[in-house]
Amino acid sequence: MERVLIKNTAEYLNKNVKVCGWINNCRSHGKVLFVDLRDKSGILQTVFAGNDKDLYEKALSLRPEWVVCLEGTIKERPKGMQNPKIETGKVEMEVEKMEVLSKAETLPFGIDTDGYEINEEKRLEYRYLDLRRKRLKKNLIGRNEIIYFIREYLKKEDFIEIQTPLLSKSTPEGARDYLVPSRVHPGKFFALPQSPQQYKQLLMVAGIEKYFQIAPCFRDEAARADRSPGEFYQLDMEMAFVEQEDVLRITENLLIALVKKLFPAKKIKQIPFPRITHKTAMEKYKTDKPDLRNNPEKNNSQPCGASHDELAFCWIVDFPLFQEQTKDDFFHGAGQKLAPSHHMFTAPKKEDIKLLDKDPLKVRSCQYDLVLNGVEIGGGSIRIHDFEIQEKIFDLIGFTKKEKEYFSHLLTAFKYGVPPHGGIAPGLDRLIRILLGENNIREVIAFPLSGDTRDLMMDAPAEVEKKQLDELSIEIKKSKK
Amino acid sequence: MERVLIKNTAEYLNKNVKVCGWINNCRSHGKVLFVDLRDKSGILQTVFAGNDKDLYEKALSLRPEWVVCLEGTIKERPKGMQNPKIETGKVEMEVEKMEVLSKAETLPFGIDTDGYEINEEKRLEYRYLDLRRKRLKKNLIGRNEIIYFIREYLKKEDFIEIQTPLLSKSTPEGARDYLVPSRVHPGKFFALPQSPQQYKQLLMVAGIEKYFQIAPCFRDEAARADRSPGEFYQLDMEMAFVEQEDVLRITENLLIALVKKLFPAKKIKQIPFPRITHKTAMEKYKTDKPDLRNNPEKNNSQPCGASHDELAFCWIVDFPLFQEQTKDDFFHGAGQKLAPSHHMFTAPKKEDIKLLDKDPLKVRSCQYDLVLNGVEIGGGSIRIHDFEIQEKIFDLIGFTKKEKEYFSHLLTAFKYGVPPHGGIAPGLDRLIRILLGENNIREVIAFPLSGDTRDLMMDAPAEVEKKQLDELSIEIKKSKK
Repeated sequence: MERVLIKNTAEYLNKNVKVCGWINNCRSHGKVLFVDLRDKSGILQTVFAGNDKDLYEKALSLRPEWVVCLEGTIKERPKGMQNPKIETGKVEMEVEKMEVLSKAETLPFGIDTDGYEINEEKRLEYRYLDLRRKRLKKNLIGRNEIIYFIREYLKKEDFIEIQTPLLSKSTPEGARDYLVPSRVHPGKFFALPQSPQQYKQLLMVAGIEKYFQIAPCFRDEAARADRSPGEFYQLDMEMAFVEQEDVLRITENLLIALVKKLFPAKKIKQIPFPRITHKTAMEKYKTDKPDLRNNPEKNNSQPCGASHDELAFCWIVDFPLFQEQTKDDFFHGAGQKLAPSHHMFTAPKKEDIKLLDKDPLKVRSCQYDLVLNGVEIGGGSIRIHDFEIQEKIFDLIGFTKKEKEYFSHLLTAFKYGVPPHGGIAPGLDRLIRILLGENNIREVIAFPLSGDTRDLMMDAPAEVEKKQLDELSIEIKKSKK
Repeated sequence: MERVLIKNTAEYLNKNVKVCGWINNCRSHGKVLFVDLRDKSGILQTVFAGNDKDLYEKALSLRPEWVVCLEGTIKERPKGMQNPKIETGKVEMEVEKMEVLSKAETLPFGIDTDGYEINEEKRLEYRYLDLRRKRLKKNLIGRNEIIYFIREYLKKEDFIEIQTPLLSKSTPEGARDYLVPSRVHPGKFFALPQSPQQYKQLLMVAGIEKYFQIAPCFRDEAARADRSPGEFYQLDMEMAFVEQEDVLRITENLLIALVKKLFPAKKIKQIPFPRITHKTAMEKYKTDKPDLRNNPEKNNSQPCGASHDELAFCWIVDFPLFQEQTKDDFFHGAGQKLAPSHHMFTAPKKEDIKLLDKDPLKVRSCQYDLVLNGVEIGGGSIRIHDFEIQEKIFDLIGFTKKEKEYFSHLLTAFKYGVPPHGGIAPGLDRLIRILLGENNIREVIAFPLSGDTRDLMMDAPAEVEKKQLDELSIEIKKSKK
């Protein structure tokens, strides 16, 4: 007999059907045993009435989270016993046949709550059980819906999605790279991409004109408020023959359409999204990530009286091209004082190019950040497409000849006809987190690393066999004790 | 003035428009200069007639692959000068204004051919120019259409796409892992996943029931006929409460719908796809990847008279569960003689379980391979969902206690209620290659690694700074000379 999904069982009144799933709970009422069965679609009350004694005895051994298939007749529940809150609340199954597919030990924690009260390390260790939780399943489905909507929308806008390499090259781009030793080329390393930045610019050189990718990105840095340590996803977009205005418009329209379609109960505070210069933001809100749900006079304190369903987007524009280097800066020690405030491919504003030599800290850039409820959910810029200006920026941030060499493919590409181009890369995990009303990005990722960059379920990173390291021509450095 | 895409220019007859793109070529006919402009949508003939002398002089300096914006009036071409083969063949632009956005040196190779005749290393080194080729752009678009179709189809079938971790754990699963040293946890390593196999099984334990992912996979092995070295993509699918028949049907229906929608000119040789047991395949075709376009009497020689547009799918079923270990086998030396012929999570056929102890090489498995035109485009299986059988298989392939430890999370998970489940993972690069009629998978990947696992454009893998290795607590082993 073909299995029927639980949410559809009400359509089979007085018919014989088969359902499969997990035992959600059992309740014995005298001679009658009620067993709630759960599958991905819902929960069904099933009844073992005791008229089949063998079956009834067998059913008494059922325990929560066992996996079973049940066959029986779908009946209307007695009046007064109906539960109008759930799809299957008017029916129940009189079980006639039962097959136990898999037994279960007692779970290390309950899965019938939202789970916030449970120790997170425990939840991550048993993530496959944690994900049985209704809330987390809803989050995974919501995440998928959001990403699907984005793909559908951008396809209609004539973007094409292109996968760019994950085994890439280490370049001094800002954050620390994850390195991948090459076995075939001993002593050499791939790097996992911090973002597809260079590839997407090269795709513009290739004439793709409208590119996007739901792109995995990797940075070997500590967990941040809104970024998983290790890997995270961004909606990576790049367009040719565009100006800042175009990128802002396309991104804004996409987000408005997304909220309208998938989160109709949420209210976008202001459309079009307000635009605030970096200078104004710093003066008025003392931050470049103002939470516009707040009263600005209250200096960006916790939103008070802000609706949970309010989405206050804004654009921050006119960033300075450079900032002073700090010790944490990857470029520190390169011999110069300037670090790019976005990244080194960001174009200076045309009218400020003349300031590059005499007063570089005054140069404004074509960078823009998208902020939502006080969180930076994405940054982008119009890129440099002029070979000479790109070299000049490299010089100003103090790149040596060797450091420039890392980017020689890009500089070479710029000699063969480059369209003006620009893009943006919203961080998907944090956008999804806010849209789904969660406080922590780990709640919207299926198998997140812990805050200290470990996979508690798999127990990774882990020690590996010496043979594996030998093959890679590397060894672990003895620590100086 | 807003830019108009070239393919739409014919709609603007006698109107003034702006187009942007690359100079495809220039032809001087006495006092008239013809310049073909190319953007992502097509090619437009533009005319500099010489009535504006300054403009004409300026235009004479134009060279192929410069990036320009041109403004002018769209006119009907004189009769006899029309080219009915292209969308814009009836019109041309009388240019009135020109802006040069970027100049170009002479390209290292021509881009107006299919490019097969050009040295491939050169093409990969300048991939951003190679991709300007019409054929490659068509391939990237085709790839995107295929993947988009798959997502759309599976969504309708109620599958949910879930991203699984890329920083994962090294387990003895068959091929060599790429390792990623951890900075935060010195001496420990992540591994890039060979496939999301364990995660997708854990998602079944979590009750997701229908999962898929366009999944990047990593194997540190030499290039194979139809697999890029390094990284490749698979359509990773897993379902709960299914039998072999269900997986075959869903996969088959997806592929039939895909071909019908996107490749209506192609003909699937036989529907439903023929099913051949492994034994029959080996006897009749001497291979488990028969090319059914061939005459079987000719022993799988080159297809003769086979239409380029013929797609001969077939299923190979009833594989043996084990094969004898070879030297190349990762498990070699583990103390036993058996290696899994698919992978160690594949379920034995129920009726053969009794043979596991006395005659393991006779045990047939619930493995199935999908073959297209003589190429294995995907394999899958119904998985073991019984803790004890899984342990038994680990024993039979000779896993030590330590090796079993690598999978302890999976064995633990199997104690908490596991639905029967199974899946399949078609290799996307090779499927796309065949559908797009290419002979080499590199032709359908934007930035492929070369056969010897190098990125010739970026020059990766590459040496890295000693400081980076220090941070990772590793060093390069001196080679013994």
